[in-house]
Amino acid sequence: MKLSSYFRSTAAYRVRIALNLKQVDYDIIPVHLVRNGGEQKSAAYRHKNPEGLVPALEVQGSVLSQSLAIIEYLEEVYPEPALLPSEPLLRAYVRGLAQAITSDIHPLNNLRVLQYLVKELDVTEQQKLAWYQHWVATGFSGLETRLATSPRTGDYCLGATPGIADLCLVPQVYNAQRFNCDMSDYPTISRINEACLALQAFQQAAPEQQVDAE
Amino acid sequence: MKLSSYFRSTAAYRVRIALNLKQVDYDIIPVHLVRNGGEQKSAAYRHKNPEGLVPALEVQGSVLSQSLAIIEYLEEVYPEPALLPSEPLLRAYVRGLAQAITSDIHPLNNLRVLQYLVKELDVTEQQKLAWYQHWVATGFSGLETRLATSPRTGDYCLGATPGIADLCLVPQVYNAQRFNCDMSDYPTISRINEACLALQAFQQAAPEQQVDAE
Repeated sequence: MKLSSYFRSTAAYRVRIALNLKQVDYDIIPVHLVRNGGEQKSAAYRHKNPEGLVPALEVQGSVLSQSLAIIEYLEEVYPEPALLPSEPLLRAYVRGLAQAITSDIHPLNNLRVLQYLVKELDVTEQQKLAWYQHWVATGFSGLETRLATSPRTGDYCLGATPGIADLCLVPQVYNAQRFNCDMSDYPTISRINEACLALQAFQQAAPEQQVDAE
Repeated sequence: MKLSSYFRSTAAYRVRIALNLKQVDYDIIPVHLVRNGGEQKSAAYRHKNPEGLVPALEVQGSVLSQSLAIIEYLEEVYPEPALLPSEPLLRAYVRGLAQAITSDIHPLNNLRVLQYLVKELDVTEQQKLAWYQHWVATGFSGLETRLATSPRTGDYCLGATPGIADLCLVPQVYNAQRFNCDMSDYPTISRINEACLALQAFQQAAPEQQVDAE
């Protein structure tokens, strides 16, 4: 398997954690999202992934895109250790937690959006930061309430083993810290983040551990 | 089942199509996203769904959130007619198509984001429209390339039956048309959209058919 990845991409970071938790061997193909106007926009990369985004996973002659689609694929092909529980209502619960991050926080705050704000809408650095922090606060507030009040929450988002929600949470917290978001309002999120970061699968997926880290 | 829905919410629209395709009975609980500052932000609604977003599906004493998590739940509990194929690579493919809409287009263009642009960043109506159309064009370009070139494409996104990608595509096209996006560059998307709209399950899920339509 070959994973097109950028060290700081939170979407690629999620997939790296999943591959590590499943102990699947993979090679990283670095795609630099900034250099040369963004290598993900090149014709060569778009030939592989027409959406022009990372991550993309090459496997069995196919190229899979979209982090959660890739992670569900890994779950189906390598069921152990399970990243989702078996009961449908619980599966919906953890998918909901994951998507609250991947659909409601991350898409608003990724590089291409911040670039559009600056280049097309001429926002100041302060406005850009406020935008970033607003969507993190909006998303994390809901998530904190859910995790702090649910009896399903354990050391991790669901019980005693890390899963699909955790591997979305950790990259988002990493990113939020990079943009100086105040995490003190989110003690449950912070506690789960710390528990995950104690695990080798999460550590080895971290941006600073990547071959293309700067 | 009770679905908290707003007639124009594309995320709720997806779930309505899935419920109709599965022929599952459900009641709509209208949540007005504009009136009174947005009923989805009320304490009563947040008690049900801390994220303060529609849709939410009440089922078996649980409240499920996030449209794709709800749709995957329906697929697991009501397997027929199937909204996903059985083979893992194909499942990843259609999930990737769906998420290219639900993670890369819709989150940037929904109501709360457009409201932020106007209220906090003071953008003009023209800039707001350009923002909307930019993200639709970016997302639909990749999707059109993928659908136009894949041998997997049939009357629908995957072969001869509507599935998870189609029920994300149709609401996004509806929304794009509402914002005057030029669809002429996306003939494959348009063709699939028309094929879906010929089906009763899609027709009955349409915004103008809803009890809270205006």
